[in-house]
Amino acid sequence: MTNVLIVYASQYGSTKKMAKTIALGAKEEGAEVTLKMAPETTTEDLIKADGIIFGSPVHMGSMDWQMKKFIDEVCSKLWMENKLNGKVGAVFATGSGFGNAGGGCELTMLSMLNNLVELGLLFIPLPKNTPGYADAGLQWGPYGRSMGPNMEQTGLTDEQLEAARHHGKHVARAAKLIKGQPLFS
Amino acid sequence: MTNVLIVYASQYGSTKKMAKTIALGAKEEGAEVTLKMAPETTTEDLIKADGIIFGSPVHMGSMDWQMKKFIDEVCSKLWMENKLNGKVGAVFATGSGFGNAGGGCELTMLSMLNNLVELGLLFIPLPKNTPGYADAGLQWGPYGRSMGPNMEQTGLTDEQLEAARHHGKHVARAAKLIKGQPLFS
Amino acid sequence: MTNVLIVYASQYGSTKKMAKTIALGAKEEGAEVTLKMAPETTTEDLIKADGIIFGSPVHMGSMDWQMKKFIDEVCSKLWMENKLNGKVGAVFATGSGFGNAGGGCELTMLSMLNNLVELGLLFIPLPKNTPGYADAGLQWGPYGRSMGPNMEQTGLTDEQLEAARHHGKHVARAAKLIKGQPLFS
Amino acid sequence: MTNVLIVYASQYGSTKKMAKTIALGAKEEGAEVTLKMAPETTTEDLIKADGIIFGSPVHMGSMDWQMKKFIDEVCSKLWMENKLNGKVGAVFATGSGFGNAGGGCELTMLSMLNNLVELGLLFIPLPKNTPGYADAGLQWGPYGRSMGPNMEQTGLTDEQLEAARHHGKHVARAAKLIKGQPLFS
Repeated sequence: MTNVLIVYASQYGSTKKMAKTIALGAKEEGAEVTLKMAPETTTEDLIKADGIIFGSPVHMGSMDWQMKKFIDEVCSKLWMENKLNGKVGAVFATGSGFGNAGGGCELTMLSMLNNLVELGLLFIPLPKNTPGYADAGLQWGPYGRSMGPNMEQTGLTDEQLEAARHHGKHVARAAKLIKGQPLFS
Repeated sequence: MTNVLIVYASQYGSTKKMAKTIALGAKEEGAEVTLKMAPETTTEDLIKADGIIFGSPVHMGSMDWQMKKFIDEVCSKLWMENKLNGKVGAVFATGSGFGNAGGGCELTMLSMLNNLVELGLLFIPLPKNTPGYADAGLQWGPYGRSMGPNMEQTGLTDEQLEAARHHGKHVARAAKLIKGQPLFS
Repeated sequence: MTNVLIVYASQYGSTKKMAKTIALGAKEEGAEVTLKMAPETTTEDLIKADGIIFGSPVHMGSMDWQMKKFIDEVCSKLWMENKLNGKVGAVFATGSGFGNAGGGCELTMLSMLNNLVELGLLFIPLPKNTPGYADAGLQWGPYGRSMGPNMEQTGLTDEQLEAARHHGKHVARAAKLIKGQPLFS
Repeated sequence: MTNVLIVYASQYGSTKKMAKTIALGAKEEGAEVTLKMAPETTTEDLIKADGIIFGSPVHMGSMDWQMKKFIDEVCSKLWMENKLNGKVGAVFATGSGFGNAGGGCELTMLSMLNNLVELGLLFIPLPKNTPGYADAGLQWGPYGRSMGPNMEQTGLTDEQLEAARHHGKHVARAAKLIKGQPLFS
């Protein structure tokens, strides 16, 4: 069985909705999925996982502090012991549409990617021909915008959720393929 | 007299249009503006300037190679000699709307900012209450999108050009204020 | 009177030592300095300041979570209200020498810079001819390494502290110059 | 047969030496290696490869302009056609030791990584328990320093080349494993 862990922070529910949709995609590929908020996630969750996905709303241009606390206090222990090397990792984010260019979404994903790479994970991108990419795509992972440029509520679009679902499928496939392979030994 | 230099690369004209609009804003503040494409810009242009603005289309997630060639071959000489310390710098970018989140625009601006900082320039951001920000704003500088999520042509909006014009005003004011001040001596 | 605020997180004392040295430099330029750890810093501290400096140890490739919590919970309020526009900002970091290349120090500084820029601050770099740069320099700000490549304790060097002191001087000068100037109005 | 392509720019020979050492590691794992400088590399080289490694000296805080030109003019065509999705990618860099913290090496690697991810490649990190990491390690890939903090010549160390060799082995293994697998279909 392939295990996929999705760790996220969420304030208004959009990130949670993206996380659940990614989980759905991973399950379609036969993976067992653990969906947890950052403060509840343990070293055991990480060790058990074959694929690890981090998600966060854009907060002041980078990941929510609860995700960073989890990384500093939980992930760091496994980094010390080289325990996560060779798993696969991926990211996603949500934000408002203020500024129209997704201000901060790229650095938010990058700040999470930075940690996944440090933990020794292979990073899974979001190819530009993934269904839904035109509405929700960044090379780093799917991005859900629940508001327009003037902060008007729009909700996540079907296309954005479609990109998220496929991201879950991609990670599950890669995790299944790479599981147990001695890439870095 | 305060001198503002705008260096840019442009393929289809959007970046040039943004550059001209920024120039307009700088002139409104009384600055003398030099507008040059990257391959034509010289060390003399840089030395003469009190404020330096770099602009580029988003190409594969970062600045156009002609901007980078200019930085590697022209700017680097002045870096060696610490000749640009204490001037002010700023950035802007243009792109398509593909992906809807401005994929790559943030790292494109950051890649130019990285060089400005290395050259010893004070970096001027784009505050979020700048007119036009909702449609064209990133903290790093104005961003012009000439296409929608599905690559349909839209042209730069008035709001995007308004943000660009104000960016030019901001840089001219800061350059005027800081000119001749021994900040780093 | 020019006010400089230094906000930092510190675990083993190196970041605190760097912070105190930066404070010393700012005082030499006549600034009044407030030195605070992230959890104690308030919106009033930020509003009162003319120059704001963020410092953090490198934790898993980016800033300590307590700095991020402060940014998410305290700075974000002032961002909403555009209250910090036009102040000056700067960063510094500390880390071990593991990896020999300062792994993570650049992205740690960048993650803090990202927030300062979002808050509307002018960013003050560390010019490469600053005293101490050869031993402690990054364009983004001074970097203190208290260990060698194999994690052996070395302590911060005099050169590193010299770069830190000058960084404090630079920020104080720029804050004094820019204070009260309507750059973004 | 697994094909690994190494594309690099080099001025003084250090990057070439790192590239050759990475090639050696890949060959030890049975891969066929193509080693090319950026201006000579073609779309055919990219299409044929199962693993693609980009390497550059640190120039003004990011990759050499010749690497960027190659990405803008050659890689971009395959991006348009989604031709490289699902291959594996990795990066390395070289620099002086000026500043002691490897100023710019992190953003140089990141700027290349950014393009690999955009091209749809799985990114292979450098785990911290890789032999040689203490002297040459960044999570993004191996880093070779040929000078000390004061620009004194040191040459690449054996440890740095050891990290490079292992990076080549890692990429070859991952490329072999993932070749022909429909991860993103």
